[in-house]
Amino acid sequence: MFEVAETGHRVSAEEYAAREPRLRENLLAAQYRLLNHAGFPVVILVAGVDGAGKGETVNLFNEWMDPRHISTHGFGAPTQDERQHPPMRRFWSVLPPRGRIGMLFGSWYTAPIVERVQGLGSVAAFRQQIEDIRRFEHMLATEGVLLLKLWFHLSKRDQRRRLNDLERDPMTRWRVSENDWTNFQSYDRFRRVSAATLEATSTPQAPWHLIDGSDPHHRSLTAGQLLLDALGQRLDEATRKRPARAGAKAAVAQALPVASPDVLGALDYSARLDRATYEEQLELWQGRLNRLVRDPRFGERALVVVFEGQDAAGKGGVVRRLTGALDARQYEVIPVAAPSDEERAQPWLWRFWRKLPHKGHVAIFDRSWYGRVLVERVEKFCAPADWERAYGEINDFEEQLAANGTVVVKFFLAITKAEQLKRFRERESVSFQNFKLTPDDWRNRRQWRAYESAINDMVARTSSAEAPWTLVSANDVEHARIVVLRTLCERLQAAIRRPPRR
Amino acid sequence: MFEVAETGHRVSAEEYAAREPRLRENLLAAQYRLLNHAGFPVVILVAGVDGAGKGETVNLFNEWMDPRHISTHGFGAPTQDERQHPPMRRFWSVLPPRGRIGMLFGSWYTAPIVERVQGLGSVAAFRQQIEDIRRFEHMLATEGVLLLKLWFHLSKRDQRRRLNDLERDPMTRWRVSENDWTNFQSYDRFRRVSAATLEATSTPQAPWHLIDGSDPHHRSLTAGQLLLDALGQRLDEATRKRPARAGAKAAVAQALPVASPDVLGALDYSARLDRATYEEQLELWQGRLNRLVRDPRFGERALVVVFEGQDAAGKGGVVRRLTGALDARQYEVIPVAAPSDEERAQPWLWRFWRKLPHKGHVAIFDRSWYGRVLVERVEKFCAPADWERAYGEINDFEEQLAANGTVVVKFFLAITKAEQLKRFRERESVSFQNFKLTPDDWRNRRQWRAYESAINDMVARTSSAEAPWTLVSANDVEHARIVVLRTLCERLQAAIRRPPRR
Repeated sequence: MFEVAETGHRVSAEEYAAREPRLRENLLAAQYRLLNHAGFPVVILVAGVDGAGKGETVNLFNEWMDPRHISTHGFGAPTQDERQHPPMRRFWSVLPPRGRIGMLFGSWYTAPIVERVQGLGSVAAFRQQIEDIRRFEHMLATEGVLLLKLWFHLSKRDQRRRLNDLERDPMTRWRVSENDWTNFQSYDRFRRVSAATLEATSTPQAPWHLIDGSDPHHRSLTAGQLLLDALGQRLDEATRKRPARAGAKAAVAQALPVASPDVLGALDYSARLDRATYEEQLELWQGRLNRLVRDPRFGERALVVVFEGQDAAGKGGVVRRLTGALDARQYEVIPVAAPSDEERAQPWLWRFWRKLPHKGHVAIFDRSWYGRVLVERVEKFCAPADWERAYGEINDFEEQLAANGTVVVKFFLAITKAEQLKRFRERESVSFQNFKLTPDDWRNRRQWRAYESAINDMVARTSSAEAPWTLVSANDVEHARIVVLRTLCERLQAAIRRPPRR
Repeated sequence: MFEVAETGHRVSAEEYAAREPRLRENLLAAQYRLLNHAGFPVVILVAGVDGAGKGETVNLFNEWMDPRHISTHGFGAPTQDERQHPPMRRFWSVLPPRGRIGMLFGSWYTAPIVERVQGLGSVAAFRQQIEDIRRFEHMLATEGVLLLKLWFHLSKRDQRRRLNDLERDPMTRWRVSENDWTNFQSYDRFRRVSAATLEATSTPQAPWHLIDGSDPHHRSLTAGQLLLDALGQRLDEATRKRPARAGAKAAVAQALPVASPDVLGALDYSARLDRATYEEQLELWQGRLNRLVRDPRFGERALVVVFEGQDAAGKGGVVRRLTGALDARQYEVIPVAAPSDEERAQPWLWRFWRKLPHKGHVAIFDRSWYGRVLVERVEKFCAPADWERAYGEINDFEEQLAANGTVVVKFFLAITKAEQLKRFRERESVSFQNFKLTPDDWRNRRQWRAYESAINDMVARTSSAEAPWTLVSANDVEHARIVVLRTLCERLQAAIRRPPRR
């Protein structure tokens, strides 16, 4: 496939001088339209053969446009901190907000390609990585990110010539590293793996653009024009207010399941625990939990605990029984409410990626990313297409956590409608519990049935083998607390017995 | 001093039951006033003797108040990531935003006290740490943070009894670690060091409160009441709109210097570099810079480069010449503009702490924390007392960077008023440079003299031995670029020759 980028097309200095100012002017205008519109972020992947002009193009884009609204990120070997987390986190953490441009020099393609070229990992693992990338990029596109993937190519002969030229001049010799020559030895293999990767990941939403890197003038004008076209098209669409995701919505609407099993209705809400048994069991499971997280094997793991539940189901009380067993240095409780403006300018899962625990640590989410398919669905804060695709996005997210050795335990604390009313009345009458009752609570209560459907769908569609839901009957708070602590201990115990998957 | 907290005061279960609901109700009301007012953050330090009820109090506060607006953080040994940065960064990173409460379980006091008890480090180093803490807490207080420092005390006899009690019961044995007994061996020494530390850091703005931890009821009511009083007082002040910092302002006004030397006027603006020399020098210094940051010794360092300068002084062009010599994996350019809402809810330096480079990395600030004493001073975005104290705060900040092995290099690119006018006119006439010229630029230009004073003051008051300013005559852009690259290389070269200070 790379033959198309070996045309040897050249642009004369005169032609370049004639065309460059106009391109530059248009790019700058487009960048400012983007900034003022602030409707979507732009991610530019700069990839390809060493010496094909990747670095030069990054510098050129920064020179042509206003660099204060462009962020540039290069990726080397992961840092100690990055190694604590799923591999994709380092890319999530540098995504530009709406209105801005992020240039990624090295990307989620680097590791799969390099590992394949070096013969590390199986073909099956490589295919899985490619599939993961397709899903990730699909998510970005659906979240509105304009993704421009540029591949800078050089023929083998041109690459050799380029490296030699740089090395011959004592002033530019430093630009060639030993690594560049080592990589050159694998040129043919790199070319084959890259071709397969590009073919498999060139989707309508995020196609690859091949650029012949042999002539700087040609290369620069081509890259600039590609960016200009992509920006212009998206901005025109956005300002015409044409619903860009109409297709996605229609496709998803058909995929709606008939009906999820009524897991809420199947719970035994009469489960009770007497006070004495509760006290005894509480000490028992708190002690066990404490030992488990101090187990050296937990140092290679992390724990993410998710609490969802109806209003007044007792999440706060459970969280305190859990933290009561933990060392404050080891856990963080993350209450999830409305996103900040930094968070709003990003794909919706971004704000959860930034809260993931380090190895050996515990993150307790009091409400979570499941708000997307609960409150946001019921209150229509997002379109049906958005919460419909969220199930898959959540599964992908939790799959990455699990693959990284994180134990994901999810609890839904369920109470009956009558029990909720009783608790609301109690809260009204106890002054220091007043704050817990807001007009929102009464409003949510009127949506009880809509929430029931949403909860049943959620459990049906996001209970994976690695991260199953545990529904807890919480009409009796003592019973609920013990179920949570015991389940947590059992899941942790089972997890640390086997080594992490990766 | 701890004798005052060994009264053995006890509160009966009846009295506790009678007083607790009212305290709880008032605390909750105060928390909601704080949240709605959102004028300041609350930081509670929970420190003291093991077994004196620190953890219980943290849990109790979370139970009494709405835990969704409280963050709790424990601090153990620094993580790999934390070790990359100045020790204070981990505390900066968990400061609560305005309107919220942050409970720190372990704090900036832990390391100095523990190291002193174990006899690590010199007495002089300990005294320096104490002085640093005083300055840090003064900064927090002046930034409006309500800092409540609680010290939970137990006599030696009470601590032994407490540990024995916990250990005797098989259900609570897990709450006692071997570490607890090891620490108990050093009780007397710990007590002496703690007393000295508390005396030295009990300031009017941030006094220590001693709490006798031997009786849970007494302890809980005391801690709760202390928080309630502190909150109530600050909220009353804030809502009465009494200028809380009047004293600070008066004190600072007297400290204003007579006049800073006119460093801007002393520059030779005629400095020029011909094109051929420039090209040659550019390759030379870019090559040298590239080698320096790839030097293994740089792996133990980090580089922070600050660019300030008048509008149109050529910062962008210099930054590109610098990044042109660097691997994109090694640097980040941080353009500094208006803060986000997350940043606005924090002490002003917070947003720069979050951008610090890892070891072996380069952070290039295109404008910086010096905006506080330049644009914010001239445009009156902050009060004179605020920018006046900023000089000291900046020096403290950069001192911490330097102490951590970070090389801080600061450039002010200076042009004459006539040269600026020429460049403004050029920008107006070149369409792709239009964007660089905004009404702000013309407005700033009318404030030329006010900026001159601010710049001269800044250089006079923040040029430290570790982080001196380099003023660069930038009427000739080529000259300026070479001066910057050369200075950077020389500073880096000198720095990596000697080992990091800590």
